[in-house]
Amino acid sequence: MTDKPNLLGWTCPRPLQNYPTIVMGHGAGGRMMADLIEHLFAPAFDNEWLRQMGDSTALEQLMEMGQRLAFTTDSFVVSPLFFPGGNIGELAVYGTVNDLAMRGAKPLYLSAGFILEEGLPMETLGNIVTAMAAACKKAGVNIATGDTKVVQKGHGDGIYINTSGLGVIPADVDIGPANAQPGDVVLVSGTMGDHGIAVMSVREGLTFETEIKSDTAPLNGLVEAMMEAGQIHCLRDATRGGLAAVLNELAGSSRVGIEFDERKVPIRPEVNAACEMLGLDPLYIANEGKLVAILPETAAEVVLSAMRQHEYGKEAAIIGRVVAEHPGLVTAKTAIGGIRVVDVPAGELLPRIC
Amino acid sequence: MTDKPNLLGWTCPRPLQNYPTIVMGHGAGGRMMADLIEHLFAPAFDNEWLRQMGDSTALEQLMEMGQRLAFTTDSFVVSPLFFPGGNIGELAVYGTVNDLAMRGAKPLYLSAGFILEEGLPMETLGNIVTAMAAACKKAGVNIATGDTKVVQKGHGDGIYINTSGLGVIPADVDIGPANAQPGDVVLVSGTMGDHGIAVMSVREGLTFETEIKSDTAPLNGLVEAMMEAGQIHCLRDATRGGLAAVLNELAGSSRVGIEFDERKVPIRPEVNAACEMLGLDPLYIANEGKLVAILPETAAEVVLSAMRQHEYGKEAAIIGRVVAEHPGLVTAKTAIGGIRVVDVPAGELLPRIC
Repeated sequence: MTDKPNLLGWTCPRPLQNYPTIVMGHGAGGRMMADLIEHLFAPAFDNEWLRQMGDSTALEQLMEMGQRLAFTTDSFVVSPLFFPGGNIGELAVYGTVNDLAMRGAKPLYLSAGFILEEGLPMETLGNIVTAMAAACKKAGVNIATGDTKVVQKGHGDGIYINTSGLGVIPADVDIGPANAQPGDVVLVSGTMGDHGIAVMSVREGLTFETEIKSDTAPLNGLVEAMMEAGQIHCLRDATRGGLAAVLNELAGSSRVGIEFDERKVPIRPEVNAACEMLGLDPLYIANEGKLVAILPETAAEVVLSAMRQHEYGKEAAIIGRVVAEHPGLVTAKTAIGGIRVVDVPAGELLPRIC
Repeated sequence: MTDKPNLLGWTCPRPLQNYPTIVMGHGAGGRMMADLIEHLFAPAFDNEWLRQMGDSTALEQLMEMGQRLAFTTDSFVVSPLFFPGGNIGELAVYGTVNDLAMRGAKPLYLSAGFILEEGLPMETLGNIVTAMAAACKKAGVNIATGDTKVVQKGHGDGIYINTSGLGVIPADVDIGPANAQPGDVVLVSGTMGDHGIAVMSVREGLTFETEIKSDTAPLNGLVEAMMEAGQIHCLRDATRGGLAAVLNELAGSSRVGIEFDERKVPIRPEVNAACEMLGLDPLYIANEGKLVAILPETAAEVVLSAMRQHEYGKEAAIIGRVVAEHPGLVTAKTAIGGIRVVDVPAGELLPRIC
């Protein structure tokens, strides 16, 4: 594990200086836990909802007539905690924000549940919390409620973070994994495989001419721009299992076939090179700031153009289409012109990537 | 850790029989994870919301005019996973249900985030999931969204569970930690210290003439009965830090003093005996099915009577009152008639109790 104290410029407030590391008492519900909340979590995440400090937080009416609530949860166990382009704190915020955005929801509130390992340097925690707070600001969400537990050394890995999220789905929006229809086109919002390879390169101690950075980013703004541009049937962020897993899930849920052209999938040359070296297929590698969209052909060009104007969609591309044939099956036209079946990954390619 | 396979009669479905234990691939987003979801989580928790299988779950309009939403999160890291009277699965459901109920909310939906350690017996997971499903039924809530991660052996402790919860607070309800007023009375819903001592006794291999069982229980029904009976200012479930921590939090949030009579706090003789043996004060020991209520004196008798008629409030008692003097301070009249300050516990009494 790479500790990067002060990576993000966090300074330990005086009342916490007695604790260079997390100890069991920080999770015991007493004075020490109150210190952690009062001097670390509360000032970093400060907002009117968290300030209620109750067993649960009361949120004012957040839905209008006909709207629905989107609810999601994700635990983050990435190793190492800091990697090129990001850290576990940013992942925890953006990952859940993106899961809400994939239903067309406007993300509003997150919860944050921390499982800290005894011995975690306070500076590491401080920097992670600082990163989470900045990520919340960037994504336009608030952490409304939280929880802290501490486990003995050897029963964790520094820090695990769970975030659950709440967002509001506008009344006229119906985006879901079962909505793909034959004739629809398949788009990706940018290059595939950056996150997984960035994390892997740190773990394996690999260096490349160009540093490969994680693409971790909040996609709610991009989704909003896409929804304004045209109709969307399905959205999915291509995390664990990568593009291949997502396309298979969508083909399965919608009972349609999907065909795409490998050559049209944007992949950074350095990611391709790393994949060749490691014996990995970039189509199966996790992303943390990229989405797959399926939408009617008539909307494709205008949505693509809206994506390319957005900072997180500059390299968006149309990669394939939905067909009535071979429902549940995903096929790819290969670089040499053949057709191959792109199956679901069986088990593990890269463990603890998010 | 005590594994109790088949404690709850779970039978491993055929497609999972190839995996006697959890392996890294169960968290990798591929076929193996899909198997776990399809054959374990989905059938156990089955409901229309979970069936959506999207990145997030869409919930239909659940709030009426003037209502508020209660949102809470809690991670569960209890060790051992099974203990007299309960297990981590029940705790994870009831703990979050109770946090919602403490705002006067009707609990509706939970999320479930699992962090599984490689090597966890599939039977242990099956039994825990079975217990969670039964607990949801008992509490009247549904698991609407979930997530599974797997960490390498030696980086967890079998299983950690995060649950976040959503509930609706009726329009006319205002229960919160800052609402206590001088003149109010303080009630507890039953005996204190059962959960902490039950878990501790297994860990330490202690046996008593009468087995001490955890009190883990959903308190939303009890709270509903109390709210129907009379006005309530504050509610808090006395978990980590026990009664002492809760009274101090309420005194602090409401800027009032609290005085109570130690002799009026119901404590089982066997819990008292165990505490003496272990050198612990039962006022600081965690409960998982007991609450502290603060309410106007005029409502006290009728609410107490309603509590005593409920299965989880049979031993409810009035233990003290709120005073204008010494704001933030909690004092107890002792068995020998003196007065002592009941302070916040500093750090850790019993680690990993929930």
